[in-house]
Amino acid sequence: MSGVVYLVGAGPGDPELITVRGLACLRRADVVVYDRLIDRRLLDEIPPAARRVYAGKRPGRQALRQEEIDALLVRHARAGRTVVRLKGGDPFVFGRGGEEALACAAAGVAWEVVPGVSSAIAVPARAAVPLTHRGLAASFAVVTGHSPGDPRLDWEALARIDTLVVLMGAAHLAEIALLLQRHGRPAATPAAVVENGTLPDERVIIGTLADVVGSAAAAGIGSPATLVVGEVVNLRERLLGQEEQPSSAASRMRSTTCPSERPAAAAAAISPASAARQGLALTSRMRGSPAPSSRRSTRP
Amino acid sequence: MSGVVYLVGAGPGDPELITVRGLACLRRADVVVYDRLIDRRLLDEIPPAARRVYAGKRPGRQALRQEEIDALLVRHARAGRTVVRLKGGDPFVFGRGGEEALACAAAGVAWEVVPGVSSAIAVPARAAVPLTHRGLAASFAVVTGHSPGDPRLDWEALARIDTLVVLMGAAHLAEIALLLQRHGRPAATPAAVVENGTLPDERVIIGTLADVVGSAAAAGIGSPATLVVGEVVNLRERLLGQEEQPSSAASRMRSTTCPSERPAAAAAAISPASAARQGLALTSRMRGSPAPSSRRSTRP
Repeated sequence: MSGVVYLVGAGPGDPELITVRGLACLRRADVVVYDRLIDRRLLDEIPPAARRVYAGKRPGRQALRQEEIDALLVRHARAGRTVVRLKGGDPFVFGRGGEEALACAAAGVAWEVVPGVSSAIAVPARAAVPLTHRGLAASFAVVTGHSPGDPRLDWEALARIDTLVVLMGAAHLAEIALLLQRHGRPAATPAAVVENGTLPDERVIIGTLADVVGSAAAAGIGSPATLVVGEVVNLRERLLGQEEQPSSAASRMRSTTCPSERPAAAAAAISPASAARQGLALTSRMRGSPAPSSRRSTRP
Repeated sequence: MSGVVYLVGAGPGDPELITVRGLACLRRADVVVYDRLIDRRLLDEIPPAARRVYAGKRPGRQALRQEEIDALLVRHARAGRTVVRLKGGDPFVFGRGGEEALACAAAGVAWEVVPGVSSAIAVPARAAVPLTHRGLAASFAVVTGHSPGDPRLDWEALARIDTLVVLMGAAHLAEIALLLQRHGRPAATPAAVVENGTLPDERVIIGTLADVVGSAAAAGIGSPATLVVGEVVNLRERLLGQEEQPSSAASRMRSTTCPSERPAAAAAAISPASAARQGLALTSRMRGSPAPSSRRSTRP
């Protein structure tokens, strides 16, 4: 009897942004192989008897090599187990999920991808930056920022797309901003850097392509960080109801509070694990409990 | 007492790809304003006492104008109601969600975006086409295909991005394929058209930029259709374990069965509504029930 490998997207950070199907897979896993940056509250949903394998990478070292991860998935599935490979964001967006699926296919192991909410879209959205907007942006592009000097990256083309999202670029923000300007994107283009997007400790730095990286550095922004470049960044002001006074770039730098105003009770809605495993997770909030509390009040 | 407007992404089609938070919002809504192409099983999750408003568009006519939708959301929220604006895919990806959020902000109404799984990523993924893949694609771009002649669209830049996804382009596939070739994308570039992506009646047409549109027309592919262009399309063969024999373009045209092999029992996992509203939705599949059945067997 052969098992199956589910490549599950955990979503952008906020554990409630996992899909219904992803959570269902997690709750019936025999083995879960998970990455760094997976929220503890999602790990609490894994059955107690299931095996957990940490496969995350840290700067400079890696718990498991990719080939080891591939082999692990195949081995457990061949032993008849239900294997969940839990990955941040979406498994097929810079997640090497394609390689893992190929390894399963090559070994004759059944696999399924359970798409997730990608950070590329959700991190800007929760920071009040829609990637598209009528009259402002009719297209967007997504690129990884970990090797901006890779000659295969066509920065000239990327610079011309209405909205550009750079994931995993925290270490190379200055180089990326320069590349985009060198390839014709105006220095005055609105830009945002979001740290810990969709999480309670999210910080958002707003500026232009010319100054946002300096502002982010001054604020000590680190990984994980998402860079968004394009006119849509200006929507944030209006969406949050903050009509801006003419001001310097420095004064425009500020951290977000609105999207992060989630009382602990709401943030913990998926926990405790024991209740969740009895099927109470979703309903504990919904039945006679206070309204979902992560509201973004525009006029407090 | 003021209510709140939740802009909720319903995901790409498969109702189980809604987020946990999105489903939670839906289950406690007083008013739900929903689009065309929202799955019936999601609508079954709306509380019986809640008001339902259909705001969908059909080719040639529209149930409600955008300004009417905006006004409706604001009016119900001001009356103290919890309003869910349920939109296909992600609310901020070609969904006019930004406009609805702006209308709330301008009216002083609290709003929150609940990101969803975008069709741009999930439809290709479930058709076994990862948007990114090491060595094949380090970037992707997404554009809407409903007005390919819009002069603000930079098809030359879009043609140069590794993987290009065109949403809502069913009516203009031929024009889009020509535009991309005219702007330098080789005619032999692998391409796929996916109809009814992530749903049981999904169909996938594989070919090249030169011939995939003709093949799609011959197969009677209609809306909703997603076009994917790039080398990653070739991964589908290997991911599905179908080593292709040298063959004509015509024989490469075929519909997918693997991702659609979902028995009705699995597809109905979120229903029935009454059970779901008692909190059984997720657990009915997970507790002692057969394994999730949407497996993609590579070696049957």
